[in-house]
Amino acid sequence: MKKIEGGITAPQGFVAAGVKSGIKKSGKEDVALIVSQVPAAAAAVFTQNKMAAAPVLISRENAAKGKLRAIVVNSGCANACTGERGLIDARLMVTTTANLLGIAEDEVLVSSTGVIGVTLPMDKVLPGIEAAAAGLSVNGHEQALHAIMTTDTFPKVCAYELTLGDTTVKIGGVAKGAGMIHPNMATMLSYVTTDAAITAPVLQQALNAAVNKSFNMITIDGDTSTNDTLAVLANGLAKNSLIDNVSHPDYAAFCEALTNVLIELAKLVVRDGEGATKFLEVNVSGAASQEDAKTAAMAVAKSPLVKTAFFGEDPNWGRILCAVGYSGAQADPARTSLRIGGIPVVSAGLGVKPDLEALRTAMSASDIVVEIELGIGDYAATVWTCDFSYDYVKINAEYHT
Amino acid sequence: MKKIEGGITAPQGFVAAGVKSGIKKSGKEDVALIVSQVPAAAAAVFTQNKMAAAPVLISRENAAKGKLRAIVVNSGCANACTGERGLIDARLMVTTTANLLGIAEDEVLVSSTGVIGVTLPMDKVLPGIEAAAAGLSVNGHEQALHAIMTTDTFPKVCAYELTLGDTTVKIGGVAKGAGMIHPNMATMLSYVTTDAAITAPVLQQALNAAVNKSFNMITIDGDTSTNDTLAVLANGLAKNSLIDNVSHPDYAAFCEALTNVLIELAKLVVRDGEGATKFLEVNVSGAASQEDAKTAAMAVAKSPLVKTAFFGEDPNWGRILCAVGYSGAQADPARTSLRIGGIPVVSAGLGVKPDLEALRTAMSASDIVVEIELGIGDYAATVWTCDFSYDYVKINAEYHT
Repeated sequence: MKKIEGGITAPQGFVAAGVKSGIKKSGKEDVALIVSQVPAAAAAVFTQNKMAAAPVLISRENAAKGKLRAIVVNSGCANACTGERGLIDARLMVTTTANLLGIAEDEVLVSSTGVIGVTLPMDKVLPGIEAAAAGLSVNGHEQALHAIMTTDTFPKVCAYELTLGDTTVKIGGVAKGAGMIHPNMATMLSYVTTDAAITAPVLQQALNAAVNKSFNMITIDGDTSTNDTLAVLANGLAKNSLIDNVSHPDYAAFCEALTNVLIELAKLVVRDGEGATKFLEVNVSGAASQEDAKTAAMAVAKSPLVKTAFFGEDPNWGRILCAVGYSGAQADPARTSLRIGGIPVVSAGLGVKPDLEALRTAMSASDIVVEIELGIGDYAATVWTCDFSYDYVKINAEYHT
Repeated sequence: MKKIEGGITAPQGFVAAGVKSGIKKSGKEDVALIVSQVPAAAAAVFTQNKMAAAPVLISRENAAKGKLRAIVVNSGCANACTGERGLIDARLMVTTTANLLGIAEDEVLVSSTGVIGVTLPMDKVLPGIEAAAAGLSVNGHEQALHAIMTTDTFPKVCAYELTLGDTTVKIGGVAKGAGMIHPNMATMLSYVTTDAAITAPVLQQALNAAVNKSFNMITIDGDTSTNDTLAVLANGLAKNSLIDNVSHPDYAAFCEALTNVLIELAKLVVRDGEGATKFLEVNVSGAASQEDAKTAAMAVAKSPLVKTAFFGEDPNWGRILCAVGYSGAQADPARTSLRIGGIPVVSAGLGVKPDLEALRTAMSASDIVVEIELGIGDYAATVWTCDFSYDYVKINAEYHT
């Protein structure tokens, strides 16, 4: 797997565009189109929030058919909690896109992100989609990245090249995130393009597996949004041997590549967590079950007390053990050990006199690994999160409605 | 039920003391004793955290016997994650107290609160207990209140008088809280004294019911601690007709009084939440089940995005509906309505044009009621919480270890 440039238009047959339609008060890019020039197999996962936004309701239906050609996205307004009017607007975004591109309506995925409870300014959105359709190109991906951003401070994108059999295949991905990031769903907006040949059902299986190792293992504030969508389009133009079942010799390699792309994007989302000053990797090992490993790691990663301690660069290991203790995972203080930044801090449930200088250095790093060994079973899990800073409060207290 | 002075020593036969033993760096009171001069029926609930502290392990055993006479508490050190040494120290606190008071060891409840992972300075704790035992009096309750405080900014105490049959009965309570407050357990330290005559098993039933309407309905940061303990001592000196089963004519009145005391203490704990600037009451009604009502209310009350919005005095109702949506409770946007401070904000899942001036006034209040009607069933629940401020981060980033 080789890193390449070009993002979501690096794979053959994909074009994109991002335009400024005036939805965002800032005047920045706010409508994006990502299009495959030929029909593509598709797989997707969506938020499980019961207040799912209008575009999610429509995209769920279309993605379920396993064939997509276009993704239309607006930022600046989430079209969530907008009732019947929201559904009409989301459908109009789909129809407009389909007409402009000359494709079927059910080949369009639609997403919106931004403030909840406000209806879309369709007088801006529709001209925006027209302009984006007119501007589609391989070079349009940079603008597309910006057009899906909200409180993100940098675009999240990556692309890789891999060899399946003797064929070169490309895969690219983009994500937007920042606040409201929590698993149990697709988590924020993310789109992956690939020219690999793979059937939709197998692509969905690969996506489910990859999501469980990536976006479902990150948390910023524990909130899960109304609009989270992650979709993969695979247009087959690389002409590799069609991956039509999970026993296909190339399935594992494709799945690994997809997983790596999603982990990279998920980590970038955490790095750009609202107000984040530190990137934390929480590894739990020795758990009684896979579920326990994830539950314990997620409890530590979500704890406001743990997250503020890391912001304060205080190795407050009591809060970490406390979070493990209330997580619900099987745990026993006497078997628990903990390392922060590689430095042993707790052994058999007891604080060990750490090398204070080394610990201070570890806590002052921008990337910190927290390793918790439960000493009970053989299961492990890794979760990524960030610290909790003054700026998290500032950003979220001042974000308009 | 009439409010009276005197706190935990208002009921007949209770004395208390609080002394400065030097455990706290601040030099403030840090060892407390609360004693019934005659044997008392007892009931208690404890943290369900698997990393439960040494004093909790010992107190659980003693309280299970249903008879207690003394509560010994230290602040400044939690004696949690302290292994075998911690158990020895906690037992020594019990033995010392029992010997000084001439009572059985299993009549003593022991609690510790403060930093986790540090062993108790027994050279300070034991003389502290001696001094407290020597200073026990009806007037000692003020010092006792202070001796159980950590980051609390004010003592939490109340006392009431009620009539059971034709007998006057008194009930008093104290709590300490601030951070790490979350339900699913006893939650922080709280002690209730009463001169009512009630048997231990019935007292435990009353306590379980009262806790589910009070301490299990508050949340500050979602973290549950290693040391949470809530105990009730009932010494019978009021000589009311012994409440020996839940069908006793006085059971309901006693249970209501106990519930009111615990709700008052629980609300005081929320008002003193670390960094809190606002007191929020979240009412969910129209839920499909009792569990759903609580789940939805708790999700809203725990959401960092909701809590920072209230700190910013922004009526960001989208975040509230979003939290309901991911809570797991049955919900349907089209049936959901929301009032903030009595002002309708959402109706049938859609934002209503609110009276902006009135809404601004409501959001600027220090006490705000959030009413969520799910429109599905007949169940309701109330949860109390506070906002999330810069100071929460500051307090928790700078709190030592």
